[in-house]
Amino acid sequence: MSFDFDVTVAWGDCDEMGIVFYPNYYYWFDTTFHAYLGACDVGQRRIRERFGALGTPLVDTGARYRAPVRYDDRLRITADVESWGTRSFRMRYVVRLGETVAVEGHEVRAWTVATPDGGFKAAAIPEEFRAALA
Amino acid sequence: MSFDFDVTVAWGDCDEMGIVFYPNYYYWFDTTFHAYLGACDVGQRRIRERFGALGTPLVDTGARYRAPVRYDDRLRITADVESWGTRSFRMRYVVRLGETVAVEGHEVRAWTVATPDGGFKAAAIPEEFRAALA
Amino acid sequence: MSFDFDVTVAWGDCDEMGIVFYPNYYYWFDTTFHAYLGACDVGQRRIRERFGALGTPLVDTGARYRAPVRYDDRLRITADVESWGTRSFRMRYVVRLGETVAVEGHEVRAWTVATPDGGFKAAAIPEEFRAALA
Amino acid sequence: MSFDFDVTVAWGDCDEMGIVFYPNYYYWFDTTFHAYLGACDVGQRRIRERFGALGTPLVDTGARYRAPVRYDDRLRITADVESWGTRSFRMRYVVRLGETVAVEGHEVRAWTVATPDGGFKAAAIPEEFRAALA
Repeated sequence: MSFDFDVTVAWGDCDEMGIVFYPNYYYWFDTTFHAYLGACDVGQRRIRERFGALGTPLVDTGARYRAPVRYDDRLRITADVESWGTRSFRMRYVVRLGETVAVEGHEVRAWTVATPDGGFKAAAIPEEFRAALA
Repeated sequence: MSFDFDVTVAWGDCDEMGIVFYPNYYYWFDTTFHAYLGACDVGQRRIRERFGALGTPLVDTGARYRAPVRYDDRLRITADVESWGTRSFRMRYVVRLGETVAVEGHEVRAWTVATPDGGFKAAAIPEEFRAALA
Repeated sequence: MSFDFDVTVAWGDCDEMGIVFYPNYYYWFDTTFHAYLGACDVGQRRIRERFGALGTPLVDTGARYRAPVRYDDRLRITADVESWGTRSFRMRYVVRLGETVAVEGHEVRAWTVATPDGGFKAAAIPEEFRAALA
Repeated sequence: MSFDFDVTVAWGDCDEMGIVFYPNYYYWFDTTFHAYLGACDVGQRRIRERFGALGTPLVDTGARYRAPVRYDDRLRITADVESWGTRSFRMRYVVRLGETVAVEGHEVRAWTVATPDGGFKAAAIPEEFRAALA
């Protein structure tokens, strides 16, 4: 299953060259991910209550920028799970400006649970979570 | 006592007009405040351990912009406590670009402690905290 | 006339206390303002083409925080022009979480045009711009 | 040659889990890059004046997160040019927290010049720019 999230590029998202300051794409990836979880009824709050997980912090992220994006452009970000590991999974994001693919990105996220010392560690992804996003 | 914090304006801090996107000044106020607390040995971590406080969330903030600031400009932010209330205090910030006052701002912050329901409420500021910043 | 803009609080908008990091409210004010202009067909691009203005940089901003806002909260931001000056105008923002007023804010913006030295200065607001927002 | 840039993690850089919200690492990569250019006397302003280039927008970026980083942590970011292409180059970033490598990242940047239609395109990197960073 894939999930679409729409973003209108704000004035504050762009730099002096008039194009999106690139860390904002990652903010949008993260925001799309959370919206996706919410739409599947496994949002961050729910993950904690239902599964006792702390969250899904990042292991690896990346993006390729194919076309410039400017203030007021309407973007559609399409997200899906590219692959599942035992304790991590890889999200894929395609950012489109109309028909043009402007950016392609990914996030590898670890399923984490709390450790007694107040930290966290990776743990096996519950089957129920995988099923919710399938 | 006042506290100085230096900031070099980054490329990503400016907008298409080539001037600082204004919410960044508030980020710098907050960052200056935390650096100030740290320098007085009452940083956010310490506040929690020593006083059982949750933090100092904002009640009121504001800023007046007097001169444009651009990429690579070196700013000096001078902070001091403008006034103390029983449960809140007002910080004053002056942002200088060389001799020019570029921005003046303030933050009113509440001293807060946890409530049983997982929320927080304002509480009396410990004398020790006031003394640390004096 | 007033204008409504909806925001869902993203994971990255909140701090370690689990509440919105306050500079983000100003980002949302600015974004609401630009969306408002766009809805009135006097967006930033149009201002430049139609009126030869550079933009509407900030003179003064402020906000009062009345209730904490957390990840995934749905906010409605209502904007209107509170008052018009000759060369500047004051925007008012009310941020609601359901029926609760969470934040109230304002922005004073100057109408600016380019100067020969590559800078900018305040200038009289065109009647057509005022009429568009009325 | 490599270049070191120090960052103290601000309160607003962290999320509800108490760790750095990951897009901020990219903001720091970009900021380190610009500081590096400045230290080599080929900052963004200078690039424009000296070479007629518009800037060095991103083609590809990525990061791997190896250890959590928290509020008030002191980071040292070490940058160097990993490789040169004809019209683009690859920056490498290593973020250390004390002796620990917390994050490794990269940016591929294109050398760009303006096109007559107000856009931009990649162009050959001047030898003088390469030499300045060597």
